[in-house]
Amino acid sequence: MAPTLLSTFATEIIIPVCAVIGIVFSLIQWFLVSKVKMTPDRNANNNNSNSNKNGYDDYLIEEEEGVNDHNVVVKCAEIQNAISEGATSFLFTEYQYVSVFMVVFAILIFLFLGSVEGFSTKSQKCTYNVHQMCKPALATAAFSTIAFLLGAITSLISGFLGMKIATYANARTTLEARKGVGKAFITAFRSGAVMGFLLAASGLLVLYIAINLFKLYYGDDWEGLFEAITGYGLGGSSMALFGRVGGGIYTKAADVGADLVGKIERNIPEDDPRNPAVIADNVGDNVGDIAGMGSDLFGSYAESSCAALVVASISSFGIEHDFTAMCYPLLVSSVGIIVCLITTLFATDFFEIKVVDEIQSALKKQLIISTVLMTVGIAIVSFIGLPTSFMIFNFGVQKVVYNWQLFLCVCVGLWAGLIIGFVTEYYTSNAYSPVQDVADSCRTGAATNVIFGLALGYKSVIIPIFAIAISIFVSFSFAAMYGIAVAALGMLSTIATGLAIDAYGPISDNAGGIAEMAGMSHRIRERTDALDAAGNTTAAIGKGFAIGSAALVSLALFGAFVSRAGIETVDVLTPKVFIGLIVGAMLPYWFSAMTMKSVGSAALKMVEEVRRQFNTIPGLMEGLAKPDYTTCVKISTDASIKEMIPPGALVILTPLIVGTFFGVETLSGVLAGALVSGVQVAISASNTGGAWDNAKKYIEAGASEHARTLGPKGSEPHKAAVIGDTIGDPLKDTSGPSLNILIKLMAVESLVFAPFFAAHGGLLFKL
Amino acid sequence: MAPTLLSTFATEIIIPVCAVIGIVFSLIQWFLVSKVKMTPDRNANNNNSNSNKNGYDDYLIEEEEGVNDHNVVVKCAEIQNAISEGATSFLFTEYQYVSVFMVVFAILIFLFLGSVEGFSTKSQKCTYNVHQMCKPALATAAFSTIAFLLGAITSLISGFLGMKIATYANARTTLEARKGVGKAFITAFRSGAVMGFLLAASGLLVLYIAINLFKLYYGDDWEGLFEAITGYGLGGSSMALFGRVGGGIYTKAADVGADLVGKIERNIPEDDPRNPAVIADNVGDNVGDIAGMGSDLFGSYAESSCAALVVASISSFGIEHDFTAMCYPLLVSSVGIIVCLITTLFATDFFEIKVVDEIQSALKKQLIISTVLMTVGIAIVSFIGLPTSFMIFNFGVQKVVYNWQLFLCVCVGLWAGLIIGFVTEYYTSNAYSPVQDVADSCRTGAATNVIFGLALGYKSVIIPIFAIAISIFVSFSFAAMYGIAVAALGMLSTIATGLAIDAYGPISDNAGGIAEMAGMSHRIRERTDALDAAGNTTAAIGKGFAIGSAALVSLALFGAFVSRAGIETVDVLTPKVFIGLIVGAMLPYWFSAMTMKSVGSAALKMVEEVRRQFNTIPGLMEGLAKPDYTTCVKISTDASIKEMIPPGALVILTPLIVGTFFGVETLSGVLAGALVSGVQVAISASNTGGAWDNAKKYIEAGASEHARTLGPKGSEPHKAAVIGDTIGDPLKDTSGPSLNILIKLMAVESLVFAPFFAAHGGLLFKL
Repeated sequence: MAPTLLSTFATEIIIPVCAVIGIVFSLIQWFLVSKVKMTPDRNANNNNSNSNKNGYDDYLIEEEEGVNDHNVVVKCAEIQNAISEGATSFLFTEYQYVSVFMVVFAILIFLFLGSVEGFSTKSQKCTYNVHQMCKPALATAAFSTIAFLLGAITSLISGFLGMKIATYANARTTLEARKGVGKAFITAFRSGAVMGFLLAASGLLVLYIAINLFKLYYGDDWEGLFEAITGYGLGGSSMALFGRVGGGIYTKAADVGADLVGKIERNIPEDDPRNPAVIADNVGDNVGDIAGMGSDLFGSYAESSCAALVVASISSFGIEHDFTAMCYPLLVSSVGIIVCLITTLFATDFFEIKVVDEIQSALKKQLIISTVLMTVGIAIVSFIGLPTSFMIFNFGVQKVVYNWQLFLCVCVGLWAGLIIGFVTEYYTSNAYSPVQDVADSCRTGAATNVIFGLALGYKSVIIPIFAIAISIFVSFSFAAMYGIAVAALGMLSTIATGLAIDAYGPISDNAGGIAEMAGMSHRIRERTDALDAAGNTTAAIGKGFAIGSAALVSLALFGAFVSRAGIETVDVLTPKVFIGLIVGAMLPYWFSAMTMKSVGSAALKMVEEVRRQFNTIPGLMEGLAKPDYTTCVKISTDASIKEMIPPGALVILTPLIVGTFFGVETLSGVLAGALVSGVQVAISASNTGGAWDNAKKYIEAGASEHARTLGPKGSEPHKAAVIGDTIGDPLKDTSGPSLNILIKLMAVESLVFAPFFAAHGGLLFKL
Repeated sequence: MAPTLLSTFATEIIIPVCAVIGIVFSLIQWFLVSKVKMTPDRNANNNNSNSNKNGYDDYLIEEEEGVNDHNVVVKCAEIQNAISEGATSFLFTEYQYVSVFMVVFAILIFLFLGSVEGFSTKSQKCTYNVHQMCKPALATAAFSTIAFLLGAITSLISGFLGMKIATYANARTTLEARKGVGKAFITAFRSGAVMGFLLAASGLLVLYIAINLFKLYYGDDWEGLFEAITGYGLGGSSMALFGRVGGGIYTKAADVGADLVGKIERNIPEDDPRNPAVIADNVGDNVGDIAGMGSDLFGSYAESSCAALVVASISSFGIEHDFTAMCYPLLVSSVGIIVCLITTLFATDFFEIKVVDEIQSALKKQLIISTVLMTVGIAIVSFIGLPTSFMIFNFGVQKVVYNWQLFLCVCVGLWAGLIIGFVTEYYTSNAYSPVQDVADSCRTGAATNVIFGLALGYKSVIIPIFAIAISIFVSFSFAAMYGIAVAALGMLSTIATGLAIDAYGPISDNAGGIAEMAGMSHRIRERTDALDAAGNTTAAIGKGFAIGSAALVSLALFGAFVSRAGIETVDVLTPKVFIGLIVGAMLPYWFSAMTMKSVGSAALKMVEEVRRQFNTIPGLMEGLAKPDYTTCVKISTDASIKEMIPPGALVILTPLIVGTFFGVETLSGVLAGALVSGVQVAISASNTGGAWDNAKKYIEAGASEHARTLGPKGSEPHKAAVIGDTIGDPLKDTSGPSLNILIKLMAVESLVFAPFFAAHGGLLFKL
């Protein structure tokens, strides 16, 4: 086979350089955000009369109401501190549990994998390339454990920094909103970009460094090397369990708890500073949408890279030790960082937002620009980073693949992501008829609202599933499981932009909350509300995108698992597989039942505490006394961690139990069943929830003739819409997105433990 | 192989005799019900002073209030007539569409199957038994078409007679309620039994006669004979499409439409005669739960018999022309009729119900008694009707099976049905904590009620799925797809009792409605309410049972399809199959979105008509004028038939399109995906709906201390419960049960068209 155009040396330079560029870019964004001052320091403004293009020092030029109000700034800083402290306290409590989990799970990985060859330290024959000797299973056990810890820690650090910048930027966005919607938008978006680039770049960098370090030991045994690297994906994904499930429970417990007492019993508005749960609610936005989404996408990214690498290692790339071609997945991600960097400049520097209506389209443009640019990027990488033709391992046989075919595999994933994003927007934005129909159904009460909302969610599944199916068919046909893995990577190649858009949402949401709590004017609230409304739709798009990529990733992992476990067919016509399939398809329901119940119980605890404070703190309702925010934060934190144990255990234990007792065939069935059923439940749940949320907002905003006939706030249709919104909360923010973790984590865990299951699994059938 | 203990001659006697016994028994029940007089004819009573044991002539002995009130009887007869006419008018309108559908589909079957060998009239080599010549494909096309028509017509006639007896018995139940709850129960139950036995026995008889007639032509070519017989299953199942989907839309359009205007806008109670939609609502109960459920279970019964026969025909039974063993599925059903006959006597003759509390347990005992007796029956049939060991076709190879293994296969299906029934009861009856928790959640409003209800539905999936998985594993392992088919038959072997219990529900519901409309006393209403409440839970059990059997049946059909299409593995690891799997798993969502939307649109039309009548008919609200019931019945009828076209087309066209363009592998994936995903959606939807319904009833009845803290009617928690109940209506009565049809009909259609798809399918991949 012909060599790649790109030399090994060039590859070794390009990847880390792109990653470092990403990290530096994210630090620059942070620096730019930090220039918005949170201290009422007048001198800085007076000295700085020469405004610059970035628009951060021109206080005096666009000066509007409240800019000189010291009290507002002080109040904002105070609230920001409370939110930031709450978020940090959640993270630190979580880390205590996470560290116990990490240690236990690391030991488990080591023991299970070490036992495959009876903890022997002798080299063994390779599984696929039988002419060669491979490192002992014990070494793979040890390195898998290290890779697991690396993945977990990278995810944690990125999540921590993401939360820090988000809680650092929220009040700054509020303050900038005084000067105009454009400035506020740029602040929020830049902060999102910090999170996006930090996560994408550090994920790539750590993976790259780990591969190079592991190579020092493994040398030419790439089969073992990349088997061990899969631990990285497992590490990233298991942190996502805490982020998504724990975070999902946190955010909705606080939200529902705050609303049930505040809005309904005490009749005070949302984000009212008298509500003891208000800080917990704002912390929750960050915990759920920043840390949760970040760790979810980080997990997907790490997993799809690992799935691609492990299949490549037993294909011609690995057998012939073609380092550049082997690193193709990393090269795609590297180019992705550069593409996203350019895309970001379109939002922050090349254009300026002047009116509220432009926000939504600016965010949408980000998706389109990054996809178009990335298509070119993939073409370049595919032609210089791959040989013209090569062999890919396809369940026992090698299959010839051409570089243009692989280019198409990555592209089909990338564009499927865009389509899913747009379909999600269509079904959840109140600019289109589906949400307007749901809003209209509120006329006849809450029941019809719920029926129409559920039907909308079901319907919204159709096109995304076809998009996923076509991606799967194309990439699977061209390059088997490697094709699926790179299609997933293609969808995730613009992850930095995706995350920036996604993190923008909760930052704007918080900014609105802070404006309300700081008692800022109606005009400022209108601006933050506009930012927030755009964020709601992008949040739904982000979720659709996360689910789509989770489906592809989990299929890629499934394929890698099947390859590694030495299975050549997964035949539905065998009882072992079929029962796996039907039980697997049931798991998303079991899991959703658990997470929904968890939100209910956690919210109930919050309700009790909020009621207690209103009843026992004198002067609270009158605004004379301050509520005890910290206790509410603590309740949400503790409840979320406690309540995530049952669903977490279901996810972690299922593959271990099925693999050990029923063997790899049944486990294959379970993974396939959970995947095909979970995707549907996840998409429909999050779109239904998103639609209800925006149907309510549609009535509240009253922007059209039709909307005004349904409103205003407090009307019967609006009350019905509020009920729908409350039902949608756990669906769209807890149970729906958590299903990503169910399908991915079970798959990656099976992949990591595959050698053990293949060697010692299926005890029940052996007896 | 050893011959069976039972001779061919004995088999040829036993089956038709059992079927005839069933039909005669059902006619006797009808006769007994008819002895309750609907004309205020006093003479009959005066002449008849010697009371008999069946308790139908002892008017004077237990005489209670209103027995002598001529007006009440006249009024009841009047209402009954209106309901009966409405039901008949629905059926006749439906039949117009059905006949067009039948003709078109029959032509389609003939053309597709005839074209397999290019309409050649020459004999051809058999597919499996290659040493023999088989009849031409054209003959199979013709006989499949005839079998299709036979299945469809049998289903229609049974459904029609079922509706007739139900609308004949409802007012009689009301009148008997004046004399005590026991007598009313017996009347309702006997009427249900008419439906149950008529359907089970005529289904068996027609199938048996068809086999014998077809044999005159086919002679020794049993492969062709039983291929043609599969048309019978398709006929039964396609009528179920009209019954379940059309009926489901009808019943909920009328129910929701009546409630939205009556209860909410006009504030009149349920079943108030002033409501123009009240007759349509009562007709709907019959259309949905009698005709719909009946045709659904008839379809399952016909399909599982056909699936078993088609696999048996290419196994040793068929190859060696062992008629008794070949008829094993029919023998099981024959014994089932006798077992159910004995079981029925336990409810109607051996014991008598005296107090309200005994109703529920009497119905539950029916399930247990029939299951226990049937176990013995199956044992007998398996030991005399089967050789000690035999060969079963298992995707290309023959597998040795012992008769005790086949006994276990049937039993595991039978007992899984019972388990599913009890789990469904646990999750939907308000005697247990799950529904009480849902009722309790109404304290915090409709939103928490909906969240808890959805979570309950999701959770209720777990045990039934494990029960189904275990049945599949046992029967699949023992006897491949033949095992699955007989397991399904086992679950359906007590169909007569199952249907009797199920049909009892809407009859009691109607009886309550008639009591209300005829202005009968509170005491009578209490009795009919108690009958109705028990019917609610049994309706949920019936649905669980229907879904469980649909899952097994559709798997058996899937297996038969795969065998007939000549596929030996359905490998998830091929792109063709996997995309089928994920798209198939999406279909239940698409289908549910359609059916839910259909109910919405149909209900809206009803709302408009009811409003129109209240606004334009003077004196209607005051009870001085009579509403125009007929128009409402017509609206429901027309809307239900029109609205069922899109979901019906989805079900009918999917296999044709996928098979023709993508081929049999993708179609296998679609069938498996729709099956494993559809079962979950169906179970969770119908249990969620059942739980909401009974949570509302729990609050209304106020039978416990806890229930009283939530009530009474009109309290805030009760209002929240009503919202949940309304949401649950389309879930439990339309979209949930309709999914049975989706998974079964697609499978049986694929089976019938398998030769065509195998010969000419997959156009897209061939190009």
